[in-house]
Amino acid sequence: MDNRPIGVFDSGLGGLTAVRELARIMPEEDLVYFGDTGRVPYGGRSRETIIRYARQDVAFLSTFRPKAIVVACGTVSTTALDVLKTEWAVPIFGVVEPAARAAARCTKSGRVGLIGTKATIRSGAYERALDALRPGTRVVARACPLLVPLVENGRYQPGDIVAETVVAEYLSPIREETVDTLMLGCTHYPLLKPLIARYMGPEVTLVDVGEQCAKWVAGQLSGQGLRSGRTVPGKHRFFVSDDSGDFAALASAFLGEDVGGEVKEIDITVY
Amino acid sequence: MDNRPIGVFDSGLGGLTAVRELARIMPEEDLVYFGDTGRVPYGGRSRETIIRYARQDVAFLSTFRPKAIVVACGTVSTTALDVLKTEWAVPIFGVVEPAARAAARCTKSGRVGLIGTKATIRSGAYERALDALRPGTRVVARACPLLVPLVENGRYQPGDIVAETVVAEYLSPIREETVDTLMLGCTHYPLLKPLIARYMGPEVTLVDVGEQCAKWVAGQLSGQGLRSGRTVPGKHRFFVSDDSGDFAALASAFLGEDVGGEVKEIDITVY
Repeated sequence: MDNRPIGVFDSGLGGLTAVRELARIMPEEDLVYFGDTGRVPYGGRSRETIIRYARQDVAFLSTFRPKAIVVACGTVSTTALDVLKTEWAVPIFGVVEPAARAAARCTKSGRVGLIGTKATIRSGAYERALDALRPGTRVVARACPLLVPLVENGRYQPGDIVAETVVAEYLSPIREETVDTLMLGCTHYPLLKPLIARYMGPEVTLVDVGEQCAKWVAGQLSGQGLRSGRTVPGKHRFFVSDDSGDFAALASAFLGEDVGGEVKEIDITVY
Repeated sequence: MDNRPIGVFDSGLGGLTAVRELARIMPEEDLVYFGDTGRVPYGGRSRETIIRYARQDVAFLSTFRPKAIVVACGTVSTTALDVLKTEWAVPIFGVVEPAARAAARCTKSGRVGLIGTKATIRSGAYERALDALRPGTRVVARACPLLVPLVENGRYQPGDIVAETVVAEYLSPIREETVDTLMLGCTHYPLLKPLIARYMGPEVTLVDVGEQCAKWVAGQLSGQGLRSGRTVPGKHRFFVSDDSGDFAALASAFLGEDVGGEVKEIDITVY
């Protein structure tokens, strides 16, 4: 039994989709979220810069003495997780392994689609994980650099002509390959789920990496006797590196709960 | 006569459209460019963060002992220029004043459109400058947060369905107001000029803020006897805060000249 908080971070708002799942599955846990809104998006940056930013994110969350840290960011999970794990003693969980396991379970045809940021697709991390779990799986991967800016700007509703056009362009080569499973390889993408589901059709299963990661983390913590013993709801705290005024409103929409006055701004470059 | 370089900076690639104009008008000048590619885009961030980033950008360029610094960034020009000017002795030029002068000259109807980042539109800086120059001018302003990500990803050609859709959505309310002049209030936007021109029609004059700024700076330097006395072409040096591999290729396209091996990566956070 361990009442310390779970730390969660992402480049911006996307990781809140993982927070929502963590809070749903483990309502008694304290959660501390950091969104690096002063430097979002990460996905088009170099490996070196992503690692540098991720080190600071983990260092900040470590000040809360968390029992675990969740990298709720596809870009960091695919590009910097191994480095972070060698540098920190706290258990650090990324989104790749649980998502690959879910995709390996879901696919019947062995044809799996993958969308992510430039850095995620460049890393080949999802492909390696899937190949280890289900050798011979064919992965049709596509970098989608405009999806994070769209979601961060609140443009993800079905009927949004710009979002519809961008999604159709990115997904059409994947749909042509008749995959039966599509991995949403970035925690920003679940917001686009209704729109993506309509485009891909009902025969394609969407794997939400944040959701899978939350389930995986809950299982790991339970297995290691690290769950909280509380019987009351845990506290949720939110930190950002820049608040341009609309974070709280957008975040509330992402979470399905009010984050109102709870958002604090910090200087991430001092960590 | 002054052979010191001119420093130029932007959040990313956009400022290169101003560099192109500066090099065309003043080929004998040395230019030092800094693109903050590790933290691009600036336009959706808070005023405080934009000022913090801009201070570091100026501090870095100051290490070259420039005779002038050009803020080739609409967001910084509208949000941080006054602060920077009070803090540095070197002459600092932004894009607002020269662009507003051009728009005031161009418009016959007194109905002027303005597009820019969220921070630029929030600042009201173009409106204030225009009102001082041509009282009663009606400015129809629109924030276009997705245009910088589009341009930074090389998506600006006519025929690009995503770029066409985004531009049409942003510009339709401005076109409906029958403006005769449209200020492209961000140095990223000139890349979209052919596409924007086609959408707005031939009766609307487009004001390129980088181009106007370059002309203004040339005039100011000449007036103060600060032009270079060289008869050979000046050197152009390029610095970025992150090089994800495609900067040189994209930058060459923006500039119409090869920047090949000349791009150096620096850590902007130490300035």
